Amino acid sequence: MPDLTSTANPRVKNLVRLRTRRHRDAAGVTLIEGHDELALALDAGVRPTEVYWAPDLVRDRGLLDRMPGARATSVSREVFARIAYRESPDGWLAVAPAPGRPLADLVLRPDALVLVAEGIEKPGNVGAMLRTAEACGADAVVIATADRAGTDFANPNVVRASKGTVFAVPVASATTTEVVDWLRRNEIRTFVTTPAGSTELARADLAGPSALVVGTEATGVTDAWLDAADTTVVIPMHGTVNSLNASIAAAVVLFEAVRQRSATSAR
Amino acid sequence: MPDLTSTANPRVKNLVRLRTRRHRDAAGVTLIEGHDELALALDAGVRPTEVYWAPDLVRDRGLLDRMPGARATSVSREVFARIAYRESPDGWLAVAPAPGRPLADLVLRPDALVLVAEGIEKPGNVGAMLRTAEACGADAVVIATADRAGTDFANPNVVRASKGTVFAVPVASATTTEVVDWLRRNEIRTFVTTPAGSTELARADLAGPSALVVGTEATGVTDAWLDAADTTVVIPMHGTVNSLNASIAAAVVLFEAVRQRSATSAR
Repeated sequence: MPDLTSTANPRVKNLVRLRTRRHRDAAGVTLIEGHDELALALDAGVRPTEVYWAPDLVRDRGLLDRMPGARATSVSREVFARIAYRESPDGWLAVAPAPGRPLADLVLRPDALVLVAEGIEKPGNVGAMLRTAEACGADAVVIATADRAGTDFANPNVVRASKGTVFAVPVASATTTEVVDWLRRNEIRTFVTTPAGSTELARADLAGPSALVVGTEATGVTDAWLDAADTTVVIPMHGTVNSLNASIAAAVVLFEAVRQRSATSAR
Repeated sequence: MPDLTSTANPRVKNLVRLRTRRHRDAAGVTLIEGHDELALALDAGVRPTEVYWAPDLVRDRGLLDRMPGARATSVSREVFARIAYRESPDGWLAVAPAPGRPLADLVLRPDALVLVAEGIEKPGNVGAMLRTAEACGADAVVIATADRAGTDFANPNVVRASKGTVFAVPVASATTTEVVDWLRRNEIRTFVTTPAGSTELARADLAGPSALVVGTEATGVTDAWLDAADTTVVIPMHGTVNSLNASIAAAVVLFEAVRQRSATSAR
């Protein structure tokens, strides 16, 4: 008999509430649903506080052993159907501390590599950028927004699209003004990617402390970033349409930084 | 009064039929829906054979002047609702020759740059790769599949995700055996991207005639490609999760080829 069989239980109601950003923000948590997503988050060092699992749906209980600090609750199939947000749920749902931290809490290495994405909201794009930044060993991904609300890294669709990397690479969201100030205070050079950039990507010196800034596909970066740029950078284009996805542009500049840094260290 | 007001008209029935691959393949055509998609396709040189537009929905008729060779038919709002495949249609639908050609019809420059993607099916990924390959000035994008059916470049979702670049960069789909034979006949070196690759990306010489091969995210390339490789290439990774989207991996290798080639020509 599972621990929790009544959909009227207040804990069930609370989990359903956490699907909305307001309640997640208030509680400072995110939801991680699905065996594979949860496994990736655990790989990335996440420590869930609660885990709900449905014995009727779960194939392999092994994950439970990886969350000794979490309050584990088995639930009936009916309860799980209520708390799951996905179609075809697989019986795993965890509550974990929300990813995302204040800018001031980001830890930077001396040769910091930071990806700054301005105005990127689509979970698919945010997720792809997080995966790439993690693979490049970036110190942080910062999303600069126009207003204070910021990017919702705890959005379950971001968690899913990032394949768990949202927990592996430090992330923050702040207004453009705040991000520009933070970069200046930390003496990080700002390289802003724009089709009208004055320096070709391969000629920009990305070996020192660098923030690589990309904007949206539709409108690029705002004037605030063009003004704040130490260097404006252009990705070389050789076609006639020349339309790059925003997460592809981010990957091209990040991997160029990686290339330059490994070439430097090999010298 | 529009030219076409009856949803019972056989031309309406035929357009609805073209939503299925079988009928598109038989007719050798694709559908392009939406003002922006159509404008991009025209920019890329596409010559639609038919265009359907709904005066009640269309804001700017200027596109009609760009298709002098197309049979233009104005349709009622009701007819357009039937022939549109999108939600919130904007009143534009064109029939154009299908993208994709036989391998033998691809034209290669002496220093050819070809992207080969194995088993990539998701329209979003195919579309992103086409956009990147076009921006890099690649000679062709070839999708290698296990069976003869091949990739459906005429799928309206591929057309949309590619932002019209499916018409701007030559595309072909064939079995892996056929693609390997074609590359050998054309004396193109094969660089296969794999986590176990023996050569780091920046050290692979991509300045000559090169095919850059990427596999799926889940399983990578098949053994057939590892066997056919002149060089196996690894993208350097610096994280702990190291999960790259397939279209990101394609972008990283393509832009490295562009970088090497522009460095060579600048010498």
